[in-house]
Amino acid sequence: MAQLFYLADLFGVAVFAITGALMAGRKSMDLFGVLVIAVITALGGGTLRDLILDNHPVSWILNDLYILVASLAAVGTVIWVRLTRPIHEKGLLLADAFGLAVFTVIGTEVAMQHAVPYSTAVIMGVMTGVAGGVMRDVICNEIPLIFQKEIYATACIAGALAFIGLRELGTPHWLDTGLAMLTVLLIRLAAIRWHISLPRFHLLDRD
Amino acid sequence: MAQLFYLADLFGVAVFAITGALMAGRKSMDLFGVLVIAVITALGGGTLRDLILDNHPVSWILNDLYILVASLAAVGTVIWVRLTRPIHEKGLLLADAFGLAVFTVIGTEVAMQHAVPYSTAVIMGVMTGVAGGVMRDVICNEIPLIFQKEIYATACIAGALAFIGLRELGTPHWLDTGLAMLTVLLIRLAAIRWHISLPRFHLLDRD
Amino acid sequence: MAQLFYLADLFGVAVFAITGALMAGRKSMDLFGVLVIAVITALGGGTLRDLILDNHPVSWILNDLYILVASLAAVGTVIWVRLTRPIHEKGLLLADAFGLAVFTVIGTEVAMQHAVPYSTAVIMGVMTGVAGGVMRDVICNEIPLIFQKEIYATACIAGALAFIGLRELGTPHWLDTGLAMLTVLLIRLAAIRWHISLPRFHLLDRD
Repeated sequence: MAQLFYLADLFGVAVFAITGALMAGRKSMDLFGVLVIAVITALGGGTLRDLILDNHPVSWILNDLYILVASLAAVGTVIWVRLTRPIHEKGLLLADAFGLAVFTVIGTEVAMQHAVPYSTAVIMGVMTGVAGGVMRDVICNEIPLIFQKEIYATACIAGALAFIGLRELGTPHWLDTGLAMLTVLLIRLAAIRWHISLPRFHLLDRD
Repeated sequence: MAQLFYLADLFGVAVFAITGALMAGRKSMDLFGVLVIAVITALGGGTLRDLILDNHPVSWILNDLYILVASLAAVGTVIWVRLTRPIHEKGLLLADAFGLAVFTVIGTEVAMQHAVPYSTAVIMGVMTGVAGGVMRDVICNEIPLIFQKEIYATACIAGALAFIGLRELGTPHWLDTGLAMLTVLLIRLAAIRWHISLPRFHLLDRD
Repeated sequence: MAQLFYLADLFGVAVFAITGALMAGRKSMDLFGVLVIAVITALGGGTLRDLILDNHPVSWILNDLYILVASLAAVGTVIWVRLTRPIHEKGLLLADAFGLAVFTVIGTEVAMQHAVPYSTAVIMGVMTGVAGGVMRDVICNEIPLIFQKEIYATACIAGALAFIGLRELGTPHWLDTGLAMLTVLLIRLAAIRWHISLPRFHLLDRD
């Protein structure tokens, strides 16, 4: 089970790295830029969470598999795009939703191990899921997509709450993990499928 | 007295959250984006200070009142703007100046408890006061206002210096806190009132 | 020798601060903005490295010479540009390459003292060298130059690898430090001289 979860984590790292590499490609970055953006997208959220929780050593510091997986995913993306143009947009969205689910649950669990209030645990879950993507967008000079697109972070919040609720009920670890991930996944996929968005807050420039 | 200061701190959090929510509204973000930008604006400066000083746990980690106040202020802003268009620009500037004063003094004091040199204490005071706003502007893809507008950070520097000076003179805590806050407030209000700015440094693109 | 290295470090701080001040000038920031951007450019990379490695106290917290040197370099730049327009572009690039070399070696060495894997040590070396510049560009609303320009970070990677290799071979400290710095310097200067760039990764907006 722990093995499975570790694999899912690495899968999430790879998927987030791919979205980073694609964004870097849209900005015509060089190979080093692609690598950096991919790594930041994949590991930025967890790193920020660890720093704020004072949870040292930061996950990837002592285990170089994380950086390796992110780098390989980035290089693989470049090669793949060079060889065969089309990217399977649908497949990528699905994979991204899965990565989001894993990261959210990991982040919430790490926070709970630090005995923080529920609200902080939710924030840490969301942060682990979305902060890497926010850093990617900010460095690439874009307003972060997740603040404007279909329900994204909302799926994380629901997943984190589900995880906390089940945890407190004392369900087995595989069950609360699984159900919480499923919550994120289903909400996210429903939002993509039916283009559901949160209402926006429009404000004219000088109000 | 400590109670009063705690209330002032929460007031600062609320005001900064409002400025964050308004900026998010100008960028047409969705509700989640508004919340995130509000929270980052309100708590980003103090968080960065705590990380650099290794001052754990970070203030809002164990006390969920901070996040709650910031979130309520953000949601309240959205509702307020929806219901009754006009925002009292003057009132907001005044409130922001007050928040800046509180944050600066808190930041300087926290730093001094870590026995750092005076220069570092000043930097930490300024950082606590302005870094949240810088993060807000960077994420929203704007060049930070405080680097171009009327005297803003300069008011923080003066306030931090006043606090350090009075502290070393051994004045009572309520007095050095009050006078330092007053320093920030008066300088900031004077700058707004008479549009005082620091000289700018213009450099053509290829010099 | 340690004295010499300390001086080289301060020299790097000054040079990076100058590049920060110049960028702030291109954005017409006020004097405070110039100072902040200069300090972030000079100390941002090392600060981020220290936070992620949990290497406290952060270098400049207890030694105010770093902030002082960065501030003086920034103020000096403003005065210099005001008095005598032209900036010696070539000289600045050379100085920047030297600063990059020093920072990279320092970063790699600090990381190795924390007994991290080689890959992490390389990342910390590169981060120390380039992250300050990335922060400068992000805050100034530019896509970071180093992800698009002539070989820059690649020089850091080579230098970090050289340092690690020599260290493991047991060469004297002055020798591995010197040769690693030389590696960064030569690669960087060659890239500037012959306009060598990494291949770019172009991707159309909707692929």
